[in-house]
Amino acid sequence: MGSNVNRRWLLAARPSGNLKDSDFQLDTQPMPEPGEGEFVIKVTHLSFDPTQRGWIGGDTYLPAVKIGEVVRAGGAGEVVASKNPNFPVGMKVQGAVGWQEYCLTDGKGWWPTVPLHPGLSPELALGLFGTTGITAYFGLLDIGQPKAGDVVLVSGAAGATGSVVGQIAKAMGCTAIGIAGGKTKCDWVVETAGFDACIDYKSEPVAKRIRELAPKGVNVVFENVGGEILDAALANLALKARVILCGGISSYNAASAAEIQGLKNYMQLTVMRARMEGFIVLDYAARFGEAAQALGKWMAEGKVKSIEDVQEGFENIPATLRRLFEGKNFGKQLLRL
Amino acid sequence: MGSNVNRRWLLAARPSGNLKDSDFQLDTQPMPEPGEGEFVIKVTHLSFDPTQRGWIGGDTYLPAVKIGEVVRAGGAGEVVASKNPNFPVGMKVQGAVGWQEYCLTDGKGWWPTVPLHPGLSPELALGLFGTTGITAYFGLLDIGQPKAGDVVLVSGAAGATGSVVGQIAKAMGCTAIGIAGGKTKCDWVVETAGFDACIDYKSEPVAKRIRELAPKGVNVVFENVGGEILDAALANLALKARVILCGGISSYNAASAAEIQGLKNYMQLTVMRARMEGFIVLDYAARFGEAAQALGKWMAEGKVKSIEDVQEGFENIPATLRRLFEGKNFGKQLLRL
Repeated sequence: MGSNVNRRWLLAARPSGNLKDSDFQLDTQPMPEPGEGEFVIKVTHLSFDPTQRGWIGGDTYLPAVKIGEVVRAGGAGEVVASKNPNFPVGMKVQGAVGWQEYCLTDGKGWWPTVPLHPGLSPELALGLFGTTGITAYFGLLDIGQPKAGDVVLVSGAAGATGSVVGQIAKAMGCTAIGIAGGKTKCDWVVETAGFDACIDYKSEPVAKRIRELAPKGVNVVFENVGGEILDAALANLALKARVILCGGISSYNAASAAEIQGLKNYMQLTVMRARMEGFIVLDYAARFGEAAQALGKWMAEGKVKSIEDVQEGFENIPATLRRLFEGKNFGKQLLRL
Repeated sequence: MGSNVNRRWLLAARPSGNLKDSDFQLDTQPMPEPGEGEFVIKVTHLSFDPTQRGWIGGDTYLPAVKIGEVVRAGGAGEVVASKNPNFPVGMKVQGAVGWQEYCLTDGKGWWPTVPLHPGLSPELALGLFGTTGITAYFGLLDIGQPKAGDVVLVSGAAGATGSVVGQIAKAMGCTAIGIAGGKTKCDWVVETAGFDACIDYKSEPVAKRIRELAPKGVNVVFENVGGEILDAALANLALKARVILCGGISSYNAASAAEIQGLKNYMQLTVMRARMEGFIVLDYAARFGEAAQALGKWMAEGKVKSIEDVQEGFENIPATLRRLFEGKNFGKQLLRL
């Protein structure tokens, strides 16, 4: 198997506020041996997602990662030892591998292991065709129900999900307006991700700019950020608007409720007869194939592309998670081990 | 016609913060004379609703009442002069009469004048069968979609709409939990309005009490208050919960955004895959008959009753509106001229 140890990143402390080096601890174990029905995945790629901050912070829609446990993460790799006939040695797979070099699993659980589609690179499988693209797809279409001609506002537009949302919106005949931090990102959102416009929340008055770009209001808001950014969107809703509450990265690092920026414009939901709804992509597991088909078709037509930001090296895993909260990633954040 | 002057309450100033006497101005005009197609209603009853604070505060879902205009209000009365064959002298009617003794109208506009149903007292027509009951009906059923066995949480439970929402919830086989201010009100909510329980937000920790009364979370929240009360509800949602954003009386008197208590727990909508949606009862105008039929059936079965709080006297009109924001009313606030 090319190695006889398994390096792992464990959760060392329940994080409070911004993530610190001391929240994680490097650990070395003997190479795991599969028992009956089990197999070992050599992890080659890890996926980084804002929701991981929730998983290590406390109980959410999944039980919290415990102190001393391997940090929960999706990823891809290759089976290198197996006592499970469904997952033979040499098979490329994806699933919940965690922050470690080798993952011992029975393939079941909250995120089952599945074979990697033969036509997909690990980057594409974890990016556009991973939870990122699927989150964009179901959130925008199922909750947001956009119609051609609608104005779709996307916060975190340079992020993994946001950048796909805007591309899908454009593919459906909508106007896509992004919100991102800094000129470099905003240029990227328009030039690379193909949005019609992007508002720089670091240098522009967001509510005013939304009003200028969408004087009749926004029909769909795909929210990844929360706080003041969401308040600016709520102030500019069109009648019967749909607000998709996908994430609230602005609050994930808050150490206490007092640090959370409260929403002030929520009564605009009443004035505009509008709806704000949350969702969790795992609830759509039975329909993932539908999303993959649609995304594949748009990709073949050149309407949607996968955009990845790939870091390198096992040592850099904790720092790569922090990139999401420091606004450093462009598109889907991955790491190659 | 028994009088030759028409006393009116005009909007004297755009209110800021709590309503003041100086926001309104008493005015006396000659008795109006109907032109072709017009008629004059002698106003006998006025309806008081939190949304009136919005109408005089600025543009909302209706254009703001202008300075110097009669304050907009629903009410009931009798036609005392007419050049409109559809509204002959002696007919009892209801509609947007405004804060005045005599209303000159052509019966059209944002809230058309309609004959009072012969079987209904003005109190019943403006209360259970008025916007109050209809708001409760469409908000709870259309937006909240309660199922038998659901837990329905109602803030402002002693108010006009809230007290009807709880009764409808009970009629549909749900558990109804109210939130109101003070022991007298809470006792009234349980004993008179028939809720299963009522939380006193002035003396009890609301979030903790919701958790005790609904350990599996609340399926439907009918929100009339907003702010901290809504945050406590959001912290206790069941999976796929529906939050009906009917009103936010806690913020209506805020002079500026800085005074509004922001919502902090909105990301619970994502964790619980829940939905928060606003509505305006006027949008349901075409279906008002459906609500009246259902409410009439429940009333005949003794499941829902109309509960009114009737003040007296033209002079007391502005003070009666303030009762809503001082939490003084039990059930539907009316005034008899």
